[in-house]
Amino acid sequence: MTRTQDPVGPCTAGSGPAEPEVSGSAASGPATGAREWLELARDRWHPALRGAVDRLDPHMRQVAGYHFGWLDADGRPSDGAAGKGLRPGLALLVADALTGAPRDAVAGAVALELVHNFSLVHDDLIDRDQARHHRPTVWTVWDDTTAVLVGDAMLAIALEELALSGSPYAVAASVALLAATRELIRGQAEDVLFESRAEVSVEECLGMVAGKTGSLLAVSASMGAILTGADDETVAAFHTFGAELGLAFQIVDDLLGIWGTSEVTGKPVYADLAAAKKTLPVVYTLASEGEAGAGLREWFATRTARDAADPDDLTQAATLIEKAGGRSWAADQAAAHVRTALAALEPVALADAQRERLIELAHFVTRRSA
Amino acid sequence: MTRTQDPVGPCTAGSGPAEPEVSGSAASGPATGAREWLELARDRWHPALRGAVDRLDPHMRQVAGYHFGWLDADGRPSDGAAGKGLRPGLALLVADALTGAPRDAVAGAVALELVHNFSLVHDDLIDRDQARHHRPTVWTVWDDTTAVLVGDAMLAIALEELALSGSPYAVAASVALLAATRELIRGQAEDVLFESRAEVSVEECLGMVAGKTGSLLAVSASMGAILTGADDETVAAFHTFGAELGLAFQIVDDLLGIWGTSEVTGKPVYADLAAAKKTLPVVYTLASEGEAGAGLREWFATRTARDAADPDDLTQAATLIEKAGGRSWAADQAAAHVRTALAALEPVALADAQRERLIELAHFVTRRSA
Repeated sequence: MTRTQDPVGPCTAGSGPAEPEVSGSAASGPATGAREWLELARDRWHPALRGAVDRLDPHMRQVAGYHFGWLDADGRPSDGAAGKGLRPGLALLVADALTGAPRDAVAGAVALELVHNFSLVHDDLIDRDQARHHRPTVWTVWDDTTAVLVGDAMLAIALEELALSGSPYAVAASVALLAATRELIRGQAEDVLFESRAEVSVEECLGMVAGKTGSLLAVSASMGAILTGADDETVAAFHTFGAELGLAFQIVDDLLGIWGTSEVTGKPVYADLAAAKKTLPVVYTLASEGEAGAGLREWFATRTARDAADPDDLTQAATLIEKAGGRSWAADQAAAHVRTALAALEPVALADAQRERLIELAHFVTRRSA
Repeated sequence: MTRTQDPVGPCTAGSGPAEPEVSGSAASGPATGAREWLELARDRWHPALRGAVDRLDPHMRQVAGYHFGWLDADGRPSDGAAGKGLRPGLALLVADALTGAPRDAVAGAVALELVHNFSLVHDDLIDRDQARHHRPTVWTVWDDTTAVLVGDAMLAIALEELALSGSPYAVAASVALLAATRELIRGQAEDVLFESRAEVSVEECLGMVAGKTGSLLAVSASMGAILTGADDETVAAFHTFGAELGLAFQIVDDLLGIWGTSEVTGKPVYADLAAAKKTLPVVYTLASEGEAGAGLREWFATRTARDAADPDDLTQAATLIEKAGGRSWAADQAAAHVRTALAALEPVALADAQRERLIELAHFVTRRSA
């Protein structure tokens, strides 16, 4: 793409937070149950996802099957690592919590996973990301044309899945999902625009993250309520729950991108600093008064002249962010968004066990660094 | 995009047939009425299209407004040439013919125009087309990223328009539109794939055209029936009418691409030969036995060594196609598809005036060379 390859974009969320992989082992403590529930939920929505992809023509079906990890690049069955299925899992967990009938939300879960992956395929192309879940991205295996078209096709079958569901709430679910899709696109466009801007405020960066990560998690949670016929207040409560969880999710991802160990992230420590990503802790620090902020501005301004992989140089930047309070600010922000997420559920009538499960899921998503 | 820039693709439909422009003056005779009806229909669907685009964030709204011609590249009001609005016009004409209530199909008309233009924006990017309606395309004014994202956004608001319509037939209309969108994507993918293939049969080329042009015209006609609550037989009849019209439309466009005068097409005569497009008359000839077929195969194999703009060289190719029967075969095919289109309407109960209007529209679409 012709996008300016500015290595020092002022605010970025990457292509959405990297979900922990199925094969990972990072989660522990209170999150263990959530991991298992997401795996159980996968058994419900994954066959329907494959059914949706089967509606595509053979070429697009093969490319989509590769992207999702069940085919290799030659179309042979494969067992590639996939994402955790957080969005469809969340939809099914919410539906289960409200009515005990998660099946009512399966079409919505599939639509969410398809919209998420449509955006990943197009974002990988736009960002020229070469790998996802340790496998080459679609545009690298095929070409730009194929990446554009298979993303388009995934968005189409996402909406088709809802339209074919027979649910009396299919239209309401589509309205919610499409509003989120517009937000998702706004967030990605801002992410790219911000890269070529000299300064971006923390508020602008948070607005971008709300679009790019918050909007789809918001509708993932509310989808489970919409498709089980919940009232407007309940739908709104879960929407807030998901939106706030999404912000916390992204901020934790930003923290892990700097201080996460490779056991947790699969990447070396300081990975986002090595890539010069201006994530939220960085943007906060760059906008801050005082010596550490000035130091980080200088670090970014002069870094192309230095070795981008020098551990001491990266440690210096990380130390400046800590000194400016960027790390603790971001951690506080993440914790505050989790609190707001959980508070949104308080007025909702839920059995204790169901409420506890949603609380554990929130912790699973946002305490990956624990 | 990384697509191989093979100037001699074996089968292509360009980015769908070029619709006659609003400012054009090519139509005459029986088509005059159809041109006026399409303009009247535009008054009904165009405000709703602008309303749909207004749901986009300011940046995407500006880019979409530029693409549709009501903004210039700086976001100032403009009066750029737009397409004729054949797809939304067809939907409204069919609704009017069936119930006299075209307003029931306005949301569908807007959705069709948005899906058509989502595909144009992405196809312009994929095909690296620099101009559309004599204006620079989105990817040339902005960049590849913007073209990908605004296309995505148009597809999203297309479906959103139906979901927000309140129509009891919104789900059925979405199902039909999304099946056509999958076909549209299949057709575009095949168009690109065929370019790098040594040989493509006439049947394969017709299958590609059915996806790339036929599918959306089919659902344009059936949309007017679906959204007015017509029975399945009527919906199917209009689907066939639109699909056959689409095939005829593309074949006429292929003929005009070779023999059309600049007054009709806005391009020089032999334009598609100068661009080495292997459209249907060309593919037919290349696959044909005899001297003329062999001559055209030789012409294509050796043309990069010659002056691509030499009028004598282009005349030679056009003459070979005529000699092989490619021109008359294509004209016969177009006429046969128009006959099949009109025959599909025979069992449908329509007032004589309404039936006549649809017949005139079919002639308008397919007799632009008259």
